Amino acid sequence: MEVGFVGLGAMGRPMAQHLQRAGHRLHLWARRPESVAPFAGTGAVVHATPAELAAATDVAFTIITTSEDVERVALGEGGFVEGVRPGWVHVDMSTIAPGTTRRIAAALAARGAAMLDAPVSGGSVAAEAGTVAMMVGGDAAVLERVRPLLATFSRAIVHVGGNGAGEVAKACNQMVMVAAIQACAEAMLLAKAHGVDPAKVREALMGGSAASRMLDVMGDRMIRRDFAAGIEARLHHKDFGILMDEAARLGAPLPIAAQVGQQLNALMAQGGAHSDTSSLIRVLERASGRGDA
Amino acid sequence: MEVGFVGLGAMGRPMAQHLQRAGHRLHLWARRPESVAPFAGTGAVVHATPAELAAATDVAFTIITTSEDVERVALGEGGFVEGVRPGWVHVDMSTIAPGTTRRIAAALAARGAAMLDAPVSGGSVAAEAGTVAMMVGGDAAVLERVRPLLATFSRAIVHVGGNGAGEVAKACNQMVMVAAIQACAEAMLLAKAHGVDPAKVREALMGGSAASRMLDVMGDRMIRRDFAAGIEARLHHKDFGILMDEAARLGAPLPIAAQVGQQLNALMAQGGAHSDTSSLIRVLERASGRGDA
Repeated sequence: MEVGFVGLGAMGRPMAQHLQRAGHRLHLWARRPESVAPFAGTGAVVHATPAELAAATDVAFTIITTSEDVERVALGEGGFVEGVRPGWVHVDMSTIAPGTTRRIAAALAARGAAMLDAPVSGGSVAAEAGTVAMMVGGDAAVLERVRPLLATFSRAIVHVGGNGAGEVAKACNQMVMVAAIQACAEAMLLAKAHGVDPAKVREALMGGSAASRMLDVMGDRMIRRDFAAGIEARLHHKDFGILMDEAARLGAPLPIAAQVGQQLNALMAQGGAHSDTSSLIRVLERASGRGDA
Repeated sequence: MEVGFVGLGAMGRPMAQHLQRAGHRLHLWARRPESVAPFAGTGAVVHATPAELAAATDVAFTIITTSEDVERVALGEGGFVEGVRPGWVHVDMSTIAPGTTRRIAAALAARGAAMLDAPVSGGSVAAEAGTVAMMVGGDAAVLERVRPLLATFSRAIVHVGGNGAGEVAKACNQMVMVAAIQACAEAMLLAKAHGVDPAKVREALMGGSAASRMLDVMGDRMIRRDFAAGIEARLHHKDFGILMDEAARLGAPLPIAAQVGQQLNALMAQGGAHSDTSSLIRVLERASGRGDA
């Protein structure tokens, strides 16, 4: 199939390669030309605009950082909307505001094209392994049409609801995940304050009701003090901005999410934007004069 | 072996029965006589005081609610300390302040007896199944001596450190676990506020980085609106009191634990003391005029 891909970062590049290995021809567009360099000589076609990419493809994926950038690629000057034809599908895997998703879906629908919001969880490790978890909003029949493409890099694909529902699930995912990282950091700090080995505490907790994927993975990073970014903390900071906007708009009280957002604000202020989110423990250490931070 | 047991509640009763099934003779003491009724006619010996129980046993277990009650049983008038002889071991599985544990350990050591703090995680389901996770503080050699007894109801036994280290790990466990429950409640509320199916959101999240035992178990309870207590919320409220005292004493900033403590305070105020901790979602619903609460 002719498959478009925009957003060749730490997540997008390996996903695009999975599509390529499955026999699909890639069509690329990138704001910065160096992003497509890893695909030189692989048969991938580079386009001058998203509109041109859309005209040459059946389906196009995006995985980009901000709501504004996704909206520009889809609906801006030279955007997808100018190149689509009936039956074309936009699969957006970015983590953005559900409202933006719904606006793009409506604009594409007016041209007979469809949109799925299909954000993913699992980080770059899962993207490389082809095992991301995907939460999908949009029409179920459209999902079935593109499912073989999604399955080249997804292990679990859940249809959550209509347009935007995937982004709502992703917002929930980020909230629960970063809260788990923060709770883990607080536990490691409390153990250290008591003079108790945090590694033993993590081991004990993994056997009981407190067990979680983040306690496992991020607890281990905190103990090894490996703060090199899997996913950069600035991206979670961005996600919490969306989350708090939505909570305010909907009148949804989210007390611990709000508190996690404040800790991410502090991490940004302390220069942690490009470090791993496990470095939330350094905010606590700095606040209490403990650790190496 | 002659084994003492004090604290025959939802956790203690099945644990004592596991010891009995493994061929040990139980020695019981209870503040309220009706607590020992399920053991009538099973060969268990009921004693008039903890001191008398201690004198008749090699090892005694306690699993009681408050720090004060554990201290009274161990060191109060007619307490263990009056009946112990060198080599005797107190295994306290209660969730109490690490400082209380260290005081009891010191008083028993003065008589040649030993103490382990060995709080458990997994709830009454795990206690029945004999699969609790246990986090142990105290002397490693003492742990090895009593390990066969612990193994009758524990799946995972981690030696965390010296006296009190088990309680520190348990405090961390409660903090991480109830934070996960609260994060799950906030996710369910946000999904509902968006008109998205919370059950689909939970399913999607369980496939990715947000996965946790509490999202699985307590998310399911919130969706089914099954708020009958596994472990009563008042017990977690008590644990957070200990946690916040320790944090204040040690100068350990625990921002989301503090926020979870406030939500538990609200749950108590709303009459939720005897309901399951998954009813934290009702505090959010009530605050925002959503749900059936």
